[in-house]
Amino acid sequence: MPKSAGILVIGNEILSGKTVDENSGFLARELRELGVDVRKMSVISDDVETIGVEVRAFSSAHDYVFTSGGVGPTHDDLTMDGIARAFDRKIHRNTQLEAALRGYYPVDLVEPNLRMADVPEGAQLIGGPGLWFPVVAVENVFIFPGVPEILRKKFSRIREMFRDAPYHLKEVYLRTDEGQIAAILHSVLARFPELLLGSYPYFDDRAYSVKLTLESKEPAYLDAAHDMLVEELARIDLTPLTVT
Amino acid sequence: MPKSAGILVIGNEILSGKTVDENSGFLARELRELGVDVRKMSVISDDVETIGVEVRAFSSAHDYVFTSGGVGPTHDDLTMDGIARAFDRKIHRNTQLEAALRGYYPVDLVEPNLRMADVPEGAQLIGGPGLWFPVVAVENVFIFPGVPEILRKKFSRIREMFRDAPYHLKEVYLRTDEGQIAAILHSVLARFPELLLGSYPYFDDRAYSVKLTLESKEPAYLDAAHDMLVEELARIDLTPLTVT
Repeated sequence: MPKSAGILVIGNEILSGKTVDENSGFLARELRELGVDVRKMSVISDDVETIGVEVRAFSSAHDYVFTSGGVGPTHDDLTMDGIARAFDRKIHRNTQLEAALRGYYPVDLVEPNLRMADVPEGAQLIGGPGLWFPVVAVENVFIFPGVPEILRKKFSRIREMFRDAPYHLKEVYLRTDEGQIAAILHSVLARFPELLLGSYPYFDDRAYSVKLTLESKEPAYLDAAHDMLVEELARIDLTPLTVT
Repeated sequence: MPKSAGILVIGNEILSGKTVDENSGFLARELRELGVDVRKMSVISDDVETIGVEVRAFSSAHDYVFTSGGVGPTHDDLTMDGIARAFDRKIHRNTQLEAALRGYYPVDLVEPNLRMADVPEGAQLIGGPGLWFPVVAVENVFIFPGVPEILRKKFSRIREMFRDAPYHLKEVYLRTDEGQIAAILHSVLARFPELLLGSYPYFDDRAYSVKLTLESKEPAYLDAAHDMLVEELARIDLTPLTVT
């Protein structure tokens, strides 16, 4: 079984349509490339109770959870409080994070800035030296800020922790109607039940009108399923436009 | 209380990072503009049991639910089955939808195409004449396809159903550090507890480094909160760069 992951985006600005969430898409692509199976992504509000309930549910259901947003010095930064509630832990001031903050704000440091050193008890700091502010993790929950550039930099520091056997992918492009091939797709899945098979129609003016995606962690299994698919398509006189 | 909404995107292609979801962002912007409060958005897999559980939870928690994806003729189109399961209803073939499909496919219609006429018993067809395929709704769940252009066209036909009192928004741009203004934001919220107040830092090289968003459905309440904010900022010698 591949490792599973859930992505939890915390922020009213996404729910109210003011900001487009780039982080869940970024993490989904990165995790897939690492061989991790993302099972669910949610965007939730800046509300301690909601964050606590969702973090608890995501943590139980997945091997890894990645949160984005809600870390910072202001009233709407409630992710740490929500995670503390999820795991029934107290918040305390982490001395290593406090030292990092005091280094970052050599002057003008005020008490609200130090809130960013307040994390649930037992939190792990990961990401190695050289990054001024490490990634905070509690249990299987890895906590990232909402600012996309910072999330990406921090994720790049720890991404190799999550590397698993890769997914192998073949894409088959066809000029047809999905209904015409539905029975063939069923028959391929009946023979190859472990195949991850997607079928996506396009209604704009591109050369193809259906894209099929075939995936497996087993290259030989993928090849055999793909060969069967192409043979079955040939029986109804369909030749893939391209296969990648 | 404003009407609440949840958005449920169904599709392995989003979770695996192959496709970027545009639909949840589109619906979030549209619904906000209509005065509807989107409380949660989730992306879930093409799995009947998962769809059933999530639809039931979303339907109970919100006034409206909007789904995107998983409607079509192939094996991975399981949204109708999931929604039927959520509400403990049977699937049946809707004669009006069947007629629409037979009109759309004058030749080459095959049984899998007719699957798109299979909907939960008691489903409503909305969207009025002139749209070849209406929006299907079950209880408070409005069902849309994943193809963005089609979702947008279909939503535009029914959007006015959802119009509510508008949100009024003011944005305040500052050159400061969030920590420096955290106490002021707290004091504004203490006086105006119903204010929707967001604070967003930026670390790139724009003219401002913090954007504050103030929202309310009551213009006078918003104005009073905004006036207090500007006064309090002036006490620490901060003048907004712009207010919109």
